[in-house]
Amino acid sequence: MENEIASYKLVIKVHHLDTFGHVNNAVYLQMFEEARWDVVGGRGYGLDMIRKTGHGPTILEIHMAFQRELTLGMKIDIRTQLKSYEGKVAVLKQWIVNEAGETCCTTDFKIGLFDLKLRKLILPTPEWLQAIGMSKPLV
Amino acid sequence: MENEIASYKLVIKVHHLDTFGHVNNAVYLQMFEEARWDVVGGRGYGLDMIRKTGHGPTILEIHMAFQRELTLGMKIDIRTQLKSYEGKVAVLKQWIVNEAGETCCTTDFKIGLFDLKLRKLILPTPEWLQAIGMSKPLV
Amino acid sequence: MENEIASYKLVIKVHHLDTFGHVNNAVYLQMFEEARWDVVGGRGYGLDMIRKTGHGPTILEIHMAFQRELTLGMKIDIRTQLKSYEGKVAVLKQWIVNEAGETCCTTDFKIGLFDLKLRKLILPTPEWLQAIGMSKPLV
Amino acid sequence: MENEIASYKLVIKVHHLDTFGHVNNAVYLQMFEEARWDVVGGRGYGLDMIRKTGHGPTILEIHMAFQRELTLGMKIDIRTQLKSYEGKVAVLKQWIVNEAGETCCTTDFKIGLFDLKLRKLILPTPEWLQAIGMSKPLV
Repeated sequence: MENEIASYKLVIKVHHLDTFGHVNNAVYLQMFEEARWDVVGGRGYGLDMIRKTGHGPTILEIHMAFQRELTLGMKIDIRTQLKSYEGKVAVLKQWIVNEAGETCCTTDFKIGLFDLKLRKLILPTPEWLQAIGMSKPLV
Repeated sequence: MENEIASYKLVIKVHHLDTFGHVNNAVYLQMFEEARWDVVGGRGYGLDMIRKTGHGPTILEIHMAFQRELTLGMKIDIRTQLKSYEGKVAVLKQWIVNEAGETCCTTDFKIGLFDLKLRKLILPTPEWLQAIGMSKPLV
Repeated sequence: MENEIASYKLVIKVHHLDTFGHVNNAVYLQMFEEARWDVVGGRGYGLDMIRKTGHGPTILEIHMAFQRELTLGMKIDIRTQLKSYEGKVAVLKQWIVNEAGETCCTTDFKIGLFDLKLRKLILPTPEWLQAIGMSKPLV
Repeated sequence: MENEIASYKLVIKVHHLDTFGHVNNAVYLQMFEEARWDVVGGRGYGLDMIRKTGHGPTILEIHMAFQRELTLGMKIDIRTQLKSYEGKVAVLKQWIVNEAGETCCTTDFKIGLFDLKLRKLILPTPEWLQAIGMSKPLV
């Protein structure tokens, strides 16, 4: 069974463009992050929760593949899906789909839950698992 | 024989930090880009050259691994090295080293030279090969 | 008769915050610009129009006053209104209102229409006057 | 007697440019902020000091005038000078000078020292007065 695919819609605006008239690679990561906060915040794990628990997400690796350029006015859908969670490390997939249903960028994030005081990765808590989109309990 | 390693030094300042007090993943890509422009610009391939030739670099894939956090005041060295150029696709490695000589982030970029009018990848030109740091002529 | 007040709604998200946990002054200008493009773009003066006519807006002066802090989760309304257009120089007012109806930031922009080839200010064209929100024809 | 003029040098690079090929107004504020941190940090009032004292600078008003465009490759000097400090409110002037010695942008900031716990403006402390560039003691 696959975990739920969350959707976050965005329109490419002038401020997303760089001096070459398209969306710079760093801005993709900003848009993916905006989508992740929308997803985990909507499931109860916003900044308040991070401050309360002292546990926040951290990124270990990112693998991006760019398939189609993003240009002004495009209406995109940023999709987010948890692919796996093994031990302390999850693989979260995010990808951008244009109005024609074509994939424009696919990115895998290796992430973990980080204890902000102990400064180390910890096992996922139930609140975090729910926020990140784990549909069923870990066995 | 390995290609030359270019060096670009930077100090982490307040404006590099996000609300968590460290450097956000998107800012790493901005710093890597700043270093790349410094490197290829210094070897004669700046914006002017792109406008003149109509050929500019494009990014196909990015693979980042984060080893150590970047925090305020750190003096870092962003290193850039061309690893390979096969057909139309190059692998460019960039990595961040702190003052203790430890690697903080390692990133591989799959890039190519893009014809801005034809909107497609082309074989590397001699000017571009030199700018990107190919030490010896392609055979 | 006052010119129309345009409204652009925004929610303050994590990526708007700086390392002090609030919205940095530079981000206010980004949000105002996002609102202006929404307003003038919606009235037919987007990037396409600028490229077609060779006439784009330019900013001569900015006067910002900060009344209330913007923090995470706030739902704000960015309002835009043309106050005057005398010769080549317009005064455009933008201000941010929170959910309680309180003003958080008030900004006056002195702007003009710029001929991108001649590199100088020009008198407003009818298309630009309409886009910027002039309700009645200039006498 | 005038207070000291601090100098912060910067080169306009590709990442400073927006889709119109020049430096966007919001980026001016980022560059001014980068210069201010350099100035007050160099005089002992960095982030550490703000965390230790619980007193940080806050901006009340900004008045920017743009005289000359900033474009790629320009070597600029951002100058910072305290003009006055009356009660809780200081006027800090920052301006950008190009290589020809011409002023490109002039900005006045009304700022104050803010108690981060009490959430209100306070009178300047000696450490802050020194950092902000007050050459002589207040009478």
